[in-house]
Order: sequence, then structure tokens, then C-alpha cells
Amino acid sequence: MNTEVLGYAAHSSQSPLVPFKFERRTPREDDVVIKIEYCGVCHSDLHQVRNDWGFSFYPIVPGHEIVGRIISTGSGAKKYKEGDLVGIGCMVDSCRTCSACHSGLEQYCEQGNIQTYGSLDRYDQQPTYGGYSQIIVCSEDFVLKVPENLDTKAVPPLLCAGITTWSPLRHWNIGKGSKVAVVGLGGLGHMAIKLANALGADVTLFTRSVNKEGDAKKLGAHQVVLSTDEAQMNSVANQFDLIIDTVPYNHDLESYIPTLTLDGTIVLVGYLGEISANSVPLIMGRRSIAGSVIGGIKETQELLDFCGEHNIVADVEMIEMRNINEAFERMLKSDVKYRFVIDIKTLVEN
Amino acid sequence: MNTEVLGYAAHSSQSPLVPFKFERRTPREDDVVIKIEYCGVCHSDLHQVRNDWGFSFYPIVPGHEIVGRIISTGSGAKKYKEGDLVGIGCMVDSCRTCSACHSGLEQYCEQGNIQTYGSLDRYDQQPTYGGYSQIIVCSEDFVLKVPENLDTKAVPPLLCAGITTWSPLRHWNIGKGSKVAVVGLGGLGHMAIKLANALGADVTLFTRSVNKEGDAKKLGAHQVVLSTDEAQMNSVANQFDLIIDTVPYNHDLESYIPTLTLDGTIVLVGYLGEISANSVPLIMGRRSIAGSVIGGIKETQELLDFCGEHNIVADVEMIEMRNINEAFERMLKSDVKYRFVIDIKTLVEN
Repeated sequence: MNTEVLGYAAHSSQSPLVPFKFERRTPREDDVVIKIEYCGVCHSDLHQVRNDWGFSFYPIVPGHEIVGRIISTGSGAKKYKEGDLVGIGCMVDSCRTCSACHSGLEQYCEQGNIQTYGSLDRYDQQPTYGGYSQIIVCSEDFVLKVPENLDTKAVPPLLCAGITTWSPLRHWNIGKGSKVAVVGLGGLGHMAIKLANALGADVTLFTRSVNKEGDAKKLGAHQVVLSTDEAQMNSVANQFDLIIDTVPYNHDLESYIPTLTLDGTIVLVGYLGEISANSVPLIMGRRSIAGSVIGGIKETQELLDFCGEHNIVADVEMIEMRNINEAFERMLKSDVKYRFVIDIKTLVEN
Repeated sequence: MNTEVLGYAAHSSQSPLVPFKFERRTPREDDVVIKIEYCGVCHSDLHQVRNDWGFSFYPIVPGHEIVGRIISTGSGAKKYKEGDLVGIGCMVDSCRTCSACHSGLEQYCEQGNIQTYGSLDRYDQQPTYGGYSQIIVCSEDFVLKVPENLDTKAVPPLLCAGITTWSPLRHWNIGKGSKVAVVGLGGLGHMAIKLANALGADVTLFTRSVNKEGDAKKLGAHQVVLSTDEAQMNSVANQFDLIIDTVPYNHDLESYIPTLTLDGTIVLVGYLGEISANSVPLIMGRRSIAGSVIGGIKETQELLDFCGEHNIVADVEMIEMRNINEAFERMLKSDVKYRFVIDIKTLVEN
């Protein structure tokens, strides 16, 4: 039997989020049912609510940084039991048969993965609804085990901001002796600093604001470089094995590329749109501009386990569900350190 | 004692090349003296003669695709003996101490390598003069062994056009089962096709001219795709592990990126200047835009040995030295299949 669930939804690109009742499906064999405790607020929630990317359909229940506890399991589900602390990130399914899926790279599924919200389920063609809601039903294969020792309310951002920066750090083999730079200090940037530091890398933050130095160093940066200061930029030429560029809008890449080592890579994780650069420092140092999106399920579990061992969570500001529209406005002004998380027990009808 | 040598030089960015007498240094301990037989004509010869990159100084004796025979050796030179068939490419020296040099990547020397022409020698600060001349003196460490079984006059382009495409093919591990595409069918492009084919890859040429199909297939391409035809471009989405982009002028990258596989790379080897692209297909397929310049000395020897084994040379059109200015004009119009080579015995005073 389907379950009636309360969530918060936008009904058009111009509407605020408001309470919304909908049904979650009767669990399939491999499904688990999760009572959501906390849900992070990601920039892409706002982009999709406002249809900035042009493919939104309504109503939208956003939220893909979900943490909660298992309350029941499908008849064939084996991985989790009632009471387990679990998470769901950006994906709830994928084709599971293509070579990307077979390699644990469901984020690059050749059929396109099924997003936690704003997609259609592969079996019943019903829209997926995200974590701004009380309960979610999901195949256990897309559910992650969350370490119990972590501060639960600060875990949700690991499932998007965390994995989005972890995946390139791992793919480009960052570890002890590596030098990593991070562009932008927001939800993604603050996780990139924490994770690169915990992996043993020497970490630099590129910023345009002098006043971010203290915060960046508290998060684990060893150095802060003012990207608007030519002398400072020249002083770090040929330094970085990897630059993680988290900036979510169109911006200059040109000045960062010469700070990469021979064979270094600047990886874009935050901005969808036109980029430009000069080919000379690419060619003269065999450098690369790359892109990366979230991470696979196996890799996300690896991240959560790593965070459990190293006691890493996001820096969060807790909000009540009814304040989500105000939180969106503050997020637009980067007025948050560094991620809003909704306490789902505040989700009520009025 | 220094040796007087006849060459061809440009005396300013507006002058044609004319006969020019100059001196080659007395061989140092590790030097060899080479009587030049053939020299290829590279696009960058023209760029540097005309000061297109802004760092030329005059007179310039161009030429960095040099093949000839050893006529004498310095007292400490051990690698070659009189009569050996040898080559010199784009570099005649580097710092030899930085980590790039220690890794056999002299092309990325942290001090900047010493170019075959248009640089200053590290010891005597004298300008280097290239292969449009009768004799050259060079440290044996920057001299390559040329296989005797190859058609000597068609070997010179291997030393620049060849290694420029070989190095990325090797760096990105192209071999049997790989799919490679080449953009542009000129000096570099025709070598890229031959070499990728010989490495066992499935090779596609991207071109804007329908009439290049026959030539491309003769060179070893398995498929030709018209880059101006959207349907053809869509039919090769997600196909290529590596695209070697040899186009020497500003051009669209955008349409090529979606034809890369997950983790695929488009490597620019021909164009120095501004590039633009859309980040979405980079991010959604962890694809990269990279650059690469020539190759190291060890890698160049590996290429020559490979070409000896597979009987690969360039397709060349032989010219006399006195026709070099006309050849430059024809090269500008891409009116050559695929590289001019100067027969140096035609180099005379009038």
C-alpha cells in the first residue's frame, strides 16, 4: 500500500516552496523505507526549482542530501535492517547494465541515472520526489550506510557537496605529497578543503576576498592566495597537481592554469556553461581542463567510511522547514557557512 | 676552429629567406657534427620568420626537422660515429637537471629548453641556427639515431609533426582497442593517422571537406566524419578515447567534446591562443581538454625505432632550397601533401 507523505514542493518556477502531500510507493522487493531526519540544501535545489537549466517539471520536492533511519524493508532487501542510519545522495537508480554502471560510475550511466528528485522512476514512470519530505522509498542499492559516530545533522552535505569534491580527489590520486588548490569557499569548497587535508595533501584556497583566510585555515587550508593579486598568483606558478574549481557561475579560468604543475588538472565541479581559456599554458605544460560530477555509489560509501574514521562532517546551519524560501535567498548571496540543513521534524502542515 | 656554413635566413619579419653565411662552433666534448641532407618545412618556421608569436630575433635560420650524417665527433662523444644517419628535432639542449628533464620530458624543461633555432646557446649565448643549412653542431644527447631502412628524405617530418602526435598517443595509452579521432589533415594530422593506425587503434578523421575521404583512408583512417554535419557528429557521440586536434587556428571545440568517451581527452597540439567550450559535456562525462607539445628525446627515439619497424615515413613533396619562399606561400594555403622537405644539396650561394 502506498504511504501518504508530507513534503515541501514548488508548483512552478515562480512559486515559493509550500507544504505538499503526496504518496510514496509500496516498497518493491529491493526497496527500503527511510524516515528522513535531516536534508541538506544544495544550490541545485534552487536551480531546479527556478528551472534555471530548462528541464524542470512540477511539482518539485527538492532535496538530495538525505539522512534518516530505516523503518521497513522490502521482502528481498538484505543490506539494511530497521533502525539503521542511512543516506541517499543525488541518485536513486541507474540502468545498472552499461559499462559505467558496471564500473561503479552510476553518475555517468549511459542511459542517464535516475535523480533523487525531478526524474521519472524506471518502472512506474512516476516522478521522483526528494528529501524535503518525511519519508522516502528507495532501492537498497542506492542507499548508503552512515557511520553512527558522526554528528548526524552535519552528515547530509557529504552526500552531494562531499562526494562531488571527493570523487575528483580520488580519481586524480590525491594523497600525501600532493598539492591541491580549491577555487571558491562555499558548500563544495569547504568540503574540498577538509577532504584534501584529511587525505594528506597540502591545500591552498584561491579566493577573491582577503577576509576568508581565517575561515579557510580553520577548515584545513595551509595557504590562501588572493586570485586578484598578480604577484601572489605568480608566486604559485607550476605548483598544483589538482585544482578543484567549485565556482558556480561563469568566471576566468585563465589565471589558474599556469599554477598547475606539468600534467596538472583543473577540474570544474560547479559551473555548467561556457568556459574560455588560453591554450598556451595547456600545451606548454601538458595541463588539462576537466569536469566531474558527483560520484558513484561505491565511492560515496568509501567517502562516508573515510569521514567516519576521520570524524569529518560539513559545517552547517540548521533551519526549520518553513524557513526554506528565506534560506534560498540567503544561499544566493553566499550568506551561509557553509550549508543549510533542514531538520525534517520541523516539517509540518502549517 | 669554427666552420663557415651556408644557410638560408630571414633578416626581418618582412624579408624573404636568402642565402646567409655564418659560423658553426668548434665541437665541444659531447658534440657531434652533422652534414645535413634533408630538412622539413614546419608551419612554425613560417610563424617564427614572420614573428607571429612576438619573440623572434634576426637573422633566423629556420628548420627543426633535420636528417643527415655524422661527419665528426667531439673528443668525449660516444654515441655516434662518422657516417651514422641521425636526426635533430625541435630541441638542441635543456637544463638537464630539473625534474622534467630527469623524466625524459625535456620539452617541458622548467628552465625552457633550447630550441634548434631562435634560442641562445646555454654556454656561449650565441643564437642557435636551424636546419636550412649545410652543417649543424649539437650535443649528442639531443641527436637521434635514424633507421637506415627508411626512405631518408621522408624522415624529417617525424622529428616534429611525428613526435607531436606520437607523444599524446603514447601518453594517453593508445593501442589495440582504442578509438582515436584526428581533427585536421595537414602535416600533423596525416602523421597522427598513420601512427594511431600503426598502434592498432581504430582511427577517424574529422574534416570539413568531403573530398578528403579518399586520402584519409589511404593514410590509414577507418572512417571520415564531416564535422559540419550534425547527424554525422551525433552518430559518433561517446566514441573516442582520444581526439588529437591539429588545427593551427582558432576553431570550435564544442562539437567535438561530446564525441569523447567517459574519461576521454581532446588534446590540442596545433593552436596557440584562446579557446572556448561548454563545461556541460566535460562535467557529465569527466572529459578533458588538454594540450601537448612535441615530445622528449627518449620518446622521439622510440618513435623513430617504431617507424623503422613499421616502415612509416611522412608523405612529402621535395623542394629545392631556392623555392622556400614559394613553399611558405603554398603552405599557408594548405597546398601540400603533407610536408615540404628541402633537399639540402640544392642549397647554393646563388
